[in-house]
Amino acid sequence: MTVVGLYIGRFQPFHLGHLEVVKLILTKVDELIIAVGSAQYSHTRKNPFTAGERIFMIRECLRDSEISTDRVQIIPVPDVNVHGIWVAHVTAYLGTYDIVFSNDPLTSRLFKEAGAKVEGNPFFKREIYSSTEIRKRVLLDQDWRALVPRSVSKIMGAVDGVARIKMLSQSDNPTP
Amino acid sequence: MTVVGLYIGRFQPFHLGHLEVVKLILTKVDELIIAVGSAQYSHTRKNPFTAGERIFMIRECLRDSEISTDRVQIIPVPDVNVHGIWVAHVTAYLGTYDIVFSNDPLTSRLFKEAGAKVEGNPFFKREIYSSTEIRKRVLLDQDWRALVPRSVSKIMGAVDGVARIKMLSQSDNPTP
Amino acid sequence: MTVVGLYIGRFQPFHLGHLEVVKLILTKVDELIIAVGSAQYSHTRKNPFTAGERIFMIRECLRDSEISTDRVQIIPVPDVNVHGIWVAHVTAYLGTYDIVFSNDPLTSRLFKEAGAKVEGNPFFKREIYSSTEIRKRVLLDQDWRALVPRSVSKIMGAVDGVARIKMLSQSDNPTP
Amino acid sequence: MTVVGLYIGRFQPFHLGHLEVVKLILTKVDELIIAVGSAQYSHTRKNPFTAGERIFMIRECLRDSEISTDRVQIIPVPDVNVHGIWVAHVTAYLGTYDIVFSNDPLTSRLFKEAGAKVEGNPFFKREIYSSTEIRKRVLLDQDWRALVPRSVSKIMGAVDGVARIKMLSQSDNPTP
Amino acid sequence: MTVVGLYIGRFQPFHLGHLEVVKLILTKVDELIIAVGSAQYSHTRKNPFTAGERIFMIRECLRDSEISTDRVQIIPVPDVNVHGIWVAHVTAYLGTYDIVFSNDPLTSRLFKEAGAKVEGNPFFKREIYSSTEIRKRVLLDQDWRALVPRSVSKIMGAVDGVARIKMLSQSDNPTP
Amino acid sequence: MTVVGLYIGRFQPFHLGHLEVVKLILTKVDELIIAVGSAQYSHTRKNPFTAGERIFMIRECLRDSEISTDRVQIIPVPDVNVHGIWVAHVTAYLGTYDIVFSNDPLTSRLFKEAGAKVEGNPFFKREIYSSTEIRKRVLLDQDWRALVPRSVSKIMGAVDGVARIKMLSQSDNPTP
Repeated sequence: MTVVGLYIGRFQPFHLGHLEVVKLILTKVDELIIAVGSAQYSHTRKNPFTAGERIFMIRECLRDSEISTDRVQIIPVPDVNVHGIWVAHVTAYLGTYDIVFSNDPLTSRLFKEAGAKVEGNPFFKREIYSSTEIRKRVLLDQDWRALVPRSVSKIMGAVDGVARIKMLSQSDNPTP
Repeated sequence: MTVVGLYIGRFQPFHLGHLEVVKLILTKVDELIIAVGSAQYSHTRKNPFTAGERIFMIRECLRDSEISTDRVQIIPVPDVNVHGIWVAHVTAYLGTYDIVFSNDPLTSRLFKEAGAKVEGNPFFKREIYSSTEIRKRVLLDQDWRALVPRSVSKIMGAVDGVARIKMLSQSDNPTP
Repeated sequence: MTVVGLYIGRFQPFHLGHLEVVKLILTKVDELIIAVGSAQYSHTRKNPFTAGERIFMIRECLRDSEISTDRVQIIPVPDVNVHGIWVAHVTAYLGTYDIVFSNDPLTSRLFKEAGAKVEGNPFFKREIYSSTEIRKRVLLDQDWRALVPRSVSKIMGAVDGVARIKMLSQSDNPTP
Repeated sequence: MTVVGLYIGRFQPFHLGHLEVVKLILTKVDELIIAVGSAQYSHTRKNPFTAGERIFMIRECLRDSEISTDRVQIIPVPDVNVHGIWVAHVTAYLGTYDIVFSNDPLTSRLFKEAGAKVEGNPFFKREIYSSTEIRKRVLLDQDWRALVPRSVSKIMGAVDGVARIKMLSQSDNPTP
Repeated sequence: MTVVGLYIGRFQPFHLGHLEVVKLILTKVDELIIAVGSAQYSHTRKNPFTAGERIFMIRECLRDSEISTDRVQIIPVPDVNVHGIWVAHVTAYLGTYDIVFSNDPLTSRLFKEAGAKVEGNPFFKREIYSSTEIRKRVLLDQDWRALVPRSVSKIMGAVDGVARIKMLSQSDNPTP
Repeated sequence: MTVVGLYIGRFQPFHLGHLEVVKLILTKVDELIIAVGSAQYSHTRKNPFTAGERIFMIRECLRDSEISTDRVQIIPVPDVNVHGIWVAHVTAYLGTYDIVFSNDPLTSRLFKEAGAKVEGNPFFKREIYSSTEIRKRVLLDQDWRALVPRSVSKIMGAVDGVARIKMLSQSDNPTP
């Protein structure tokens, strides 16, 4: 029987810590669904990139890492902003899965309350391999490229991502 | 340069006509995005299956047909029910594409008004290779299996799809 | 241990058939939650009355029938129009329950798919004890009062319900 | 004191019957707000034109009719699809008004229930001066131009409106 | 004539200060509606408990306090996040009421602007009888039980509420 | 050919700096659309006034400044809170425009990414001619009247705006 893992994140952007988690999960399951959360948002401080851009980053990175898309699906999932229906909503979007991989306390608990099996991920230098840290470094013109796969660095260039992140820090528009 | 095609449908369910279109498009483009529309809906007369179930049907069918997921992505896209923002919404979810393949007059026009290149698809016995026809045959206990790939037939069995479609025809609940 | 039953309907309006079901369920459970569905809607052909008006109708009818509100809660629940999350949504609104009582095929199936215990209700002359029939009789100036509890008849009077139902049949506004 | 009238419609499209109503209301009030309802919708059978297009049609027609925009405001108002909050929603969008002019039974009743003063409009050959009739004539290639102001006819041309209405009648997409 | 009071809160969780207010209002009105606001939210820092859980807390507390549900209704009301329609929305959900009891400046003003009669509540040691204070004490392992009715303390135990509140303080998910 | 400018803001409230921008844009374009953003919100700290009140403020100010509404339209546009569809949404509401005038980095970028022509506005003592500054002065009982047109000052009086802003600073309700 095929064992399917589920890995949920916002991936703003996808970084080397995420890649390590993907590789590790693939040693434990037959197939993996990477759910790209908050899919409807983009151009905000916490969510600078569109779902399309994030999927592209991850897909190119898997290609470079020779991880077959036969084993990995990448699925965007919009936020509903109501936690009590979150698990039902995600499940309708994705189909069935056997194990959820997450370190976020809320994600873990919501899936556990709904009866799913949840496993934590080991951290890979959490204080630096973090999307928040990467966005901060982009703002401060510090070295962020060391923290992301080459594909992400290239796509950041193609969509003018550095300028976008800097611009967003100067706007006072609402930021979902 | 990679040429990316976009094929949008609800796939309720995915049938052999859809499969022929996919094969044909793959002779024209390098990569194909299959957008599974009305993704949030399920358990209605026009949308009996969840996005997860529809993705699973398509994915298994591609596997059986030896079409590599390296060339084909399957992405669920929720309806927004406001046509003036539809193309912008789809594009944010999917990323960039070069040609849209569609026979629906509204889909074609919205993408054309937004400046996209749109191509029609040849029909494969449109009067029988149609999801509406399939759902009708299911209701009438007529032969619907001849119209769908084996994977769809199998998944319909696994999720008790025949009973679901019949049950929906008897409920007087609102049907998005 | 307290056994809690759940009875979901739109109650547009509450009629004598509903009341019989309530009485019957109360012989089987300790406590009953009456969920007033489509709670946000009113002033449409299928949903002429507000949640507030429907709650008032039911509450007064229980009082007249000497059914204690110690055993019966009346809770409005808004529609989400996405069936895949319906059960999770209802459950978050209501809390826990042990048995769902419903004759609607979709409601039954959604709760069963979510693992709940579901029981059908016996019908009390279904062809006349039906909210649709009552709204039709109101339109045709036929005797609808015989089908509803006295409290409903009185509240229909207080909110000018007959005129409202007739007016709605003449408007061409969208009717959720 | 300035007396402000409110005239609500969808204006799909604005026609000569609407224009007569506007002229008549302007003999009764000092200022008029024309609320363009269902503002978010377009590209559907009942709502072919965007709010922007409808505002443009009305504005040009007022100009041609030498009706000063000093006395008439045109304000788009989106649908909320929940009738119980409709009047509060409209009022927040528009500000204060003294008399509502409407022939629609539901609009009239909702404003009356909220305490507003409502007046009906005389009909100008209602069976032909109707947006539904105009859209039907467009579909059947019958003379629709006789029913609309010249500005509307011109803008219909500029936005390829005839083709749009015909195309929409052939699509089986959901039509809000 | 029956005088109906309305008391709106989020009750996250219901505490002894709330109970005192309920008792006091019941000396002034014949019937009381307790509206449980922000009903759709749960599992966030400011809204840890579902509507169902909050209703259960209040209902059990009334039972323990021998306050009859004949005189008190508990009704969940979802947020609409648009203040201009708030009063209309609440009223559609609840039905009619004669006096609103509230200390919140915004709630009071919105109801007053809509023409309702509003009364403030006396405070019962506001600095400690506050849901915010209770959630803070839970986080700091300080004595929060002294501030809530026994029923709340029991239900907090049954739903593992202490762990839930602590977990939410560690998640960086959006918190409506 | 008519050149149409678009000026987007929340105008909470409209001040003398806004008026200067309007006058300046009118030297560059034939017609101007003033889009009143976040139109659905009111009674929050950042959005104290309804769209109706803001339109009234601007309209009266244009009248006092002898700027003809023949050249200037004022159109409320609700937020969608999803930036990827913002430009499509605004365009559907407003119709066509030739140049967008904005100093906000996000607004500018979103319109530029969608292919529109965008121009910045010169600042008129930005540190004081700012809606944020005005709301702050209202709270601190400092002189805010010097920063707004007389019409705004008058309407603030009529809607009890000073009390409203102060009240909102004391409420702990969610503030979109």
